[in-house]
Amino acid sequence: MRNFTELSEKYRINIEERLTESLQLLGGSPLRESIGYVFSMGGKRVRPLLTIFAAEAVGESNKDVINGAVAIEILHNFTLVHDDIMDNADTRRGKTTVHIKSGVNTAILVGDQMMALAYDCLEKCSGDHLREALRIFNEGVKEVCDGQALDESLSKSAASSMPGYVDMISKKTGALLMAAGKLGAVLGGGPEDEVELLGSFGMNIGIAFQILDDMLDLEGDAERFGKPRGLDIMEKKKNYLYLKALESLDETKVGVVKAAYQKMTVTETEVAAVRDVYRNGGIVDSAQREVSEYTARALANLETFKESDGKDALIGLAKSLVQRKF
Amino acid sequence: MRNFTELSEKYRINIEERLTESLQLLGGSPLRESIGYVFSMGGKRVRPLLTIFAAEAVGESNKDVINGAVAIEILHNFTLVHDDIMDNADTRRGKTTVHIKSGVNTAILVGDQMMALAYDCLEKCSGDHLREALRIFNEGVKEVCDGQALDESLSKSAASSMPGYVDMISKKTGALLMAAGKLGAVLGGGPEDEVELLGSFGMNIGIAFQILDDMLDLEGDAERFGKPRGLDIMEKKKNYLYLKALESLDETKVGVVKAAYQKMTVTETEVAAVRDVYRNGGIVDSAQREVSEYTARALANLETFKESDGKDALIGLAKSLVQRKF
Repeated sequence: MRNFTELSEKYRINIEERLTESLQLLGGSPLRESIGYVFSMGGKRVRPLLTIFAAEAVGESNKDVINGAVAIEILHNFTLVHDDIMDNADTRRGKTTVHIKSGVNTAILVGDQMMALAYDCLEKCSGDHLREALRIFNEGVKEVCDGQALDESLSKSAASSMPGYVDMISKKTGALLMAAGKLGAVLGGGPEDEVELLGSFGMNIGIAFQILDDMLDLEGDAERFGKPRGLDIMEKKKNYLYLKALESLDETKVGVVKAAYQKMTVTETEVAAVRDVYRNGGIVDSAQREVSEYTARALANLETFKESDGKDALIGLAKSLVQRKF
Repeated sequence: MRNFTELSEKYRINIEERLTESLQLLGGSPLRESIGYVFSMGGKRVRPLLTIFAAEAVGESNKDVINGAVAIEILHNFTLVHDDIMDNADTRRGKTTVHIKSGVNTAILVGDQMMALAYDCLEKCSGDHLREALRIFNEGVKEVCDGQALDESLSKSAASSMPGYVDMISKKTGALLMAAGKLGAVLGGGPEDEVELLGSFGMNIGIAFQILDDMLDLEGDAERFGKPRGLDIMEKKKNYLYLKALESLDETKVGVVKAAYQKMTVTETEVAAVRDVYRNGGIVDSAQREVSEYTARALANLETFKESDGKDALIGLAKSLVQRKF
């Protein structure tokens, strides 16, 4: 993973610089400071890195690629600002969310203007790529909105199921990573089949990432992830573990899970009981296997690509995910 | 205004059809029905008409123009959905707003997806026009967000002033009409100076429209406008009338206005007292003059254009505004 580590460190600095620079496109906007705050909240910058690595895997990085990469990161950040409103999240990455800091109305506007800013960065792409980039972008945004809407209805519906969940995370998390991969491949001048493969790569790591996220909610380092363990259970989220348990465990074990999810407030003892069911019932292992499976699919998407630093970095990115180093 | 009436009737049908057609771009989106609902709420379709007339004033309408027109109307509708959340508006054009009908979270997503849908329609424009159209669009969205943010802070700030108000409405209402005019001129193949003039035309009718709106709040037909007279006073909105009163009336009269605006709940008697101050103090007349002034500026923007049905229709559109037939 030498290439991944080296390249991602190098490009992250570049991405941060370009994010800050993009604020100039907002002129004297009263929302500029808040958007700068969103950028300063940090993040792993997985999506723009994916765009850049994808471009390098099909050809080479160029001016268009970094514009596209910054655009996709801004787009992702816009979705986070609006998601945080919808999810009533007080913090993200240990920092106060925009709607808590500045109010819901400002947060809605911050998200809206970030979306326009993302398109603004995309508009800097050269003529050869502009239309295709725009298509990928539009598709990505539409799907992300669908994913969030499905997430909303999943949480309210009694009839939630694993296929519905996978569809939801494919859209909510997969779609933007797919867009990031495709965008990089298009801007790097790749042929159509490579664009599709790098899109699938993004989708597969996206699904892996989301299932891992559900697993880390229970098994992760609370301090490192900035949220208490078992938060999904406390919030009665119908995540991968919950739906897998309902799908594969016996009535008694399902009863423990369902009992907790029917409570108004879930106690620590109940969270622990559900956790034990997930652990001892093989649900956590199953999630781990699923993460490995989607990661393997992502790696398979890269097989036909000739050796390059970009390909190496993409492999590194996918692997770092399962090794939880990222 | 023959051309305006005839052409606007003709094109409105076309616009409605194209709005409905655009829903197909959403595939099986769970938000599709809500977006269809937003379209069905109706409206005067001023912005897409402006785009089409502007194109006809510089050359002629073509396939790109209708795509651009529909895109700008969808964009406008997206801003209304989010504005209604921010303004806590229960109804719009006599119909239940999206966030009341389907919840705030859905309404946020509906707006977000409509924005992507607007860009999707814009993307159908041919290669010659795509980049410029995209620029105009991005600029429009950024300014509208600024305008809404300024409106928010204006309502909270003690130091609100007429220049701040005009800046706010220029952005909140003027910017999208400016974008509509520019977009039509670009898509119709007009030269740069005509693009600018039609942008200014849009801006000027936008400002006129907004000041008229403030005036009609007090003087309009409550049934026709679907809201009670003096709603702005009840909601203590710092509109044109309020700021003009503060700027130009004596202490006693200003005192009546300020007293009402300091109340938690403004009674009907207090609304009537403020209305009398506005009427007798020449504030309503002043608003009327301002509307005429901006309309005259809009008409002046058209002076150098050669005679055409498009130019006639634009003149008709501007005039219909002050004659309150629109």
